[in-house]
This record gives sequence, structure tokens and C-alpha cells, in this order.
Amino acid sequence: MNKNRLEAFSDGVLAIIITIMVLELKVPHGEDLSALARLLPVFMTYVLSFVYVGIYWNNHHHMLHATRRISGAVLWANLHLLFWLSLLPFATGWMGENHFASAPTALYGGVLLMAAAAYTTLQHTIIVADGRESLVKRAVGADRKGKVSLVFYAVAIPLAFVLPWISSALYVSAALMWLIPDRRIERVLGERDAESSEHPT
Amino acid sequence: MNKNRLEAFSDGVLAIIITIMVLELKVPHGEDLSALARLLPVFMTYVLSFVYVGIYWNNHHHMLHATRRISGAVLWANLHLLFWLSLLPFATGWMGENHFASAPTALYGGVLLMAAAAYTTLQHTIIVADGRESLVKRAVGADRKGKVSLVFYAVAIPLAFVLPWISSALYVSAALMWLIPDRRIERVLGERDAESSEHPT
Amino acid sequence: MNKNRLEAFSDGVLAIIITIMVLELKVPHGEDLSALARLLPVFMTYVLSFVYVGIYWNNHHHMLHATRRISGAVLWANLHLLFWLSLLPFATGWMGENHFASAPTALYGGVLLMAAAAYTTLQHTIIVADGRESLVKRAVGADRKGKVSLVFYAVAIPLAFVLPWISSALYVSAALMWLIPDRRIERVLGERDAESSEHPT
Amino acid sequence: MNKNRLEAFSDGVLAIIITIMVLELKVPHGEDLSALARLLPVFMTYVLSFVYVGIYWNNHHHMLHATRRISGAVLWANLHLLFWLSLLPFATGWMGENHFASAPTALYGGVLLMAAAAYTTLQHTIIVADGRESLVKRAVGADRKGKVSLVFYAVAIPLAFVLPWISSALYVSAALMWLIPDRRIERVLGERDAESSEHPT
Repeated sequence: MNKNRLEAFSDGVLAIIITIMVLELKVPHGEDLSALARLLPVFMTYVLSFVYVGIYWNNHHHMLHATRRISGAVLWANLHLLFWLSLLPFATGWMGENHFASAPTALYGGVLLMAAAAYTTLQHTIIVADGRESLVKRAVGADRKGKVSLVFYAVAIPLAFVLPWISSALYVSAALMWLIPDRRIERVLGERDAESSEHPT
Repeated sequence: MNKNRLEAFSDGVLAIIITIMVLELKVPHGEDLSALARLLPVFMTYVLSFVYVGIYWNNHHHMLHATRRISGAVLWANLHLLFWLSLLPFATGWMGENHFASAPTALYGGVLLMAAAAYTTLQHTIIVADGRESLVKRAVGADRKGKVSLVFYAVAIPLAFVLPWISSALYVSAALMWLIPDRRIERVLGERDAESSEHPT
Repeated sequence: MNKNRLEAFSDGVLAIIITIMVLELKVPHGEDLSALARLLPVFMTYVLSFVYVGIYWNNHHHMLHATRRISGAVLWANLHLLFWLSLLPFATGWMGENHFASAPTALYGGVLLMAAAAYTTLQHTIIVADGRESLVKRAVGADRKGKVSLVFYAVAIPLAFVLPWISSALYVSAALMWLIPDRRIERVLGERDAESSEHPT
Repeated sequence: MNKNRLEAFSDGVLAIIITIMVLELKVPHGEDLSALARLLPVFMTYVLSFVYVGIYWNNHHHMLHATRRISGAVLWANLHLLFWLSLLPFATGWMGENHFASAPTALYGGVLLMAAAAYTTLQHTIIVADGRESLVKRAVGADRKGKVSLVFYAVAIPLAFVLPWISSALYVSAALMWLIPDRRIERVLGERDAESSEHPT
């Protein structure tokens, strides 16, 4: 089974998610700059969510590049990830329109937590499908970044009912941590290419 | 005629269908969790429809992987399937907003029935185009799952006017039946690969 | 310059056009079947426009399959076609909501006319780019279907202000004429494949 | 790392941006042509923005065709460009609905300026990733067109608060300047093909 269609479908869904989020930025009725100022919180959540979808696309791209076999379980683990990411526009809109109020901020963290858990599951499913010499396994290693983000989101959810701005700060911090591109997979792929040029098949 | 563009176009349409359904989940005006609770029926229908589109994408992916020839009839049978699936967001929204009332639940079943019939037609058209040694034909066999789902939907439609919750239960059951990945095609493809490695061309 | 990205981008735009048209089918507030009945004209225009976008996708698919060279002019002629097709959801919505009133029916014909003219231009641009041995040129021949549709749309526009239902009948007739797949290009491609198997390169 | 998925994802996002802009053209309630006339300013901004997205797609297509290496920085520079372009539907809607008033016209220029700056950054990042023999570098040369557009947008923004119609004229002029396809990259690619046919590898 080839992975091209899996990538194409995921690209399509991610491209639509990233673009329909901007529909929450509703064209204001006034024509002066103050009408724009009122949209600032919605705009800020849009930027945050855009960056998150960008991070997922980026990591998904790297992970699938290193993937060798697509099993039926991988197809469904991938759809499961896309499901949670498809709720991001809703969570973004609710948080933005309510100026980072408690419940919306907690829900946003909940969606991030479920998406991160779904990504970890997809990663695991790919490693199982690829078997012993899985490149993804080697690349991911202890997956420290993945575990730290899960903790960040899990802490931010209850905290949103006490200090919502700290929850938002945690979401921003986790995003910044991921913005640094995942060099682990690039490194391992580099090693593979080096090996295969030594022992050409 | 190559099948890449058929797959790409179908992926595009399915990706958009799966994502615009989430637009029915309208951002609530209140900022507390009770505002969210009222969205529960809409959310549940979204989950159901997401799973259905996922199943169609999955089976479509497998079927086209085993397809050898794309005729003009296959192109139109595919568009016919996409047409019925494109009505799923509408049917989903109507059923969700009316909390599984009779007419919306019947319509949902109608769309599922027409989509399933269109899928069967597409399957048949591909088998005809591929001719005698059609891999899809061998893989589909008696198509028991396909026939059972058609019966489920056909029964659920009139039933929706008497016991709508049983209709919903039938939709969920049919989805669960399909969630088990279609191993038939994977098995036959495996056999082909085994054969071709024995008699290389 | 490769034609893959041109096809991918066109597929994306056509897939979105075909899917956002369904957003005009707004979820009704009532929960009985009579609420559905009121949507019938909107549904009928949706079916018509779905078929039209399907025809364009189909013919575009065939034409680009037979295309050899993509010039800068071809890129822009293609975008020009996509521009007019992107107005189809608007024209569809206006005609459907006003139950085939005069001005909306005329506008619908205007969009069809411009899209057909843009398709003819794209066809011509591809023939020029491919030069003397253009397969598309051989396949298109006298382009009788293309010319007949242009006449149908041009007649339907003024007629909409007198007998709008005849205009609608003309749109349906032109669509039916195209639904028969374009065997001309398939035939010429078949000849090419036959030739190249005689004189293998 | 292969560039196919980068192109596919960008195509998806650009296709959606170009198509959701048309959603701002809301179906009017009246059924006569005067209802259409009121939409003229919205339609004109739609045409302008369609042309701009078309230009970006076209240049992006050419630039990536000449690109050899995709680094992590290129992925993010590309997402950064897509971010600014994703704000175009919003800016288009605001300018169209307010009939080219000062603040919306300035914002439109601001989005164009940021997108143009992001394109320049992407170009630079690709040149850095490709290293000394970068084809993109040779093709871009002094990038006169790019610099002139940046000046046009930068001048148009403050001008919008004094003479908004001149700002609009500047946006149209910059678009016309780009409509002429970027022959520089085609020329350099032609040279490369000529070279490689002389010294085949």
C-alpha cells in the first residue's frame, strides 16, 4: 500500500483546517481602524492555531517521510489525528470570541491534548507497522518534546479555571518548543542516506 | 488514462466534505461549559459522519489501489458517489440540530443509502472496466458487508418515523461493521505480489 | 515545466467549488419534510451545477492528459477558466433562491458562457504551445460540441427575460450533451499508443 | 527531503484561499439586476485578489521548480508566506464592503506588503539552502520587480488615508506588472537544460 494518498488526503484536510480558521475573523461592519482593534483577540488565537497546524503538518511530513509501511491501523490512526485537529477551528473561534475566558481556554487545551495524544498513537502505530528496523523509532528516541507538551496541556486545562492567562502562556510555550524543526528525523535520514551510499543496493 | 488525478480529485472532495461538516458546530455565544453541552447532539452527528467519510475514503483508497483501468464510466460513477457524499454535511447538520427527529434521521439514512448504492455501482463499473482478471472482483467476492449495510439503511429510513433512536443505532452499527479494515483487498493484493515475484514479468 | 502542479491546483479549486456550492443548501429550521420541500429549487440548481463542474473536471482531465507542453500562457488561461467557474456557486445560489427568476437565470447563463469561452481559449492556448503535432488539436477537430454549447448559452441569456424556463431547459440540454464522455480524445490517445508500440522509442 | 508535499500543501492552501474569497460575494436577496449592481465593489476586489493569488501561485510554481533542496527553514518560510496570503480574503472582504474606504484600503496594502516580504524571505531561504550554484539565485538576479512592488505597497498604505483611489491604482499597477510571466526563471531553466544536454550526467 502506498503512502502517497495518505499524505495527499492529510495535506488536503490540514490545508482546509488552516484556511477555514480564518473565516472566524469576520469582516467588521465599521470602516475605521477601531473596528479592527476589537478583532485583536480573535486574530491572536488565529496566529496561535495557524502555528499549531503548521507544526503538525511539518512533523507529519517528516514522520511519513521516514515511514516504510502503511497498514490499515496507520490509516485509522491518521484519521483519528485529523479528527482532533478538525476541532481546532471551533476551539479557536470560541476562545478568541470570549477573550481567553476560562471554559474556552480549557477546551482549547483539551483539543491540543487529544491531538497530541493522537499524534503519539499514530507514531506508535507506524513504528509497529515498520517493525524492528523502524527509522521513525530511531528518530523519535525518548520523545522528550512529545511528553513535555502532553504535560503542558494537561496542566493548562484545570489551570484555565484559575489563571487562564497562564494556560495561554503554556500553549504558546509548547508551540515555541516545537517551532524548532525536528532535527532528529533529519539526522537519522541523513545517516540512512550515508549508509546506503556506502552499501549501495 | 491514469488514475492519479481521479484519486487526487476524490481526496480533495472528501477532505473538504469531512472538514466543512465541522462548520455546523457553530461557536456558541456563551462562555461557560453549559453552552458547550447544548452542542452535544451536533457533535455526536459530526463524529458519526466523520467516521463514515473516513470509511469511504479508506475503502475508496483500497479499491482504487486494486483498480487497473479507468474508463469514462468509472469517472462518472466516481463523481456520482462524490455527489451523494457531498450531501452528508447537510444531512448531518439537519439531524444534529433537530436532536435526531424523525424526518432528519430518515434523510440521513437516505443519503447513506444512496452513497452506498453509488459505491456499489462504482465497484461494479471498475470490475467491468478491468475485465476478466479484475483484482477488485476477486477481492470483493460476495460483498456481504456491502449488502448488509444497504439493508440496514433501507430498514432505518421508514423506522425513523416510528423509533428514530433505533435508526440511529443502525447507522452506528453499520459504521462499526466497516471500521474493521477491508482485509479482503489487502489479502488479494498480497497474493498478486506473491504471484508476480514467482513469475516476474 | 511539468503539468502535475497545474493539474493538482485545478483539482483543488474544482474540488472546493463543487463542495462549497452545497453550503447554499442551508440547514432548514423546521424538522419536518415540508421544510425540505422548500429547498427543492436550491437542490435542483445544485445538481445542475455539480454536473457542470463534473463535466469541466472530466474534459479538463482528458485535455491535459493529451497536453505535452505547459507554457506561461497556458497557466494563465487555466486560471482564467477557474475564475469563471469560481463564480458558479454564487450564480447557483442566486438562481436557486429566486426560483429561476429572470435576472438570476440570465446571470447563470452568463457565467456558463464565460466559462465555456475560457475553456475554448485554454484549448487554443494548449494547441499553440504544443505546436504542429498537437494531440489536442487532432482530438478536438471541429469542436462541434463546444460551439453548440456557446450558442445555447448565448441564446439562453436574453431568453431568460422572456421565457426563463426555456433558458433552464437549454442549460440542462447542454449538460446532457456533454455528459456523454469525450471519446474524441480517448480515440486519438489510443491511436498514439498504437503508433508508439509499433515504433518504440 | 522531497518538495512534492510542500508543493501539494501550498497548492491546497492557495486553492482554498482563492475559492473562499468568493464566499464574500454573498447571494443578494433581491432578484433583479440592481441587486447585482450593489455587489460591484465586492466583485472588483474579488477580481483583484484572485489575480494576486494567481500571481503568487504562478511565481511559487516557477520558483519551486528551480529549487533543489528543501530545508526546515524553507518549510517555515513557506508557511509564513501562506499565513499572510490567508489574510487576503479578510482584507478583500473589508475593502469591498466599505467601497475602498481609507482604513480597509490601507489594511489591504499591509497584507500585500507582508506577503511580498514573506515571498522575498522564502526566496532568500531557498537560495541559502541551495548553496552556491542556486538556480533561483541566478534567475532572480537583482529582483527589480520584487523591490518595485514592495515600494508600491509601502507608499500605498499611508496614501490610503489621503487619496485611497491612488492606493487602489497602485495595487492594480503592481498586479499588472506581475501578470507578465516571470521569464527569468524559464530562461535560466532553459539554459540548464541546454547545458545538461551538452554535458550529460
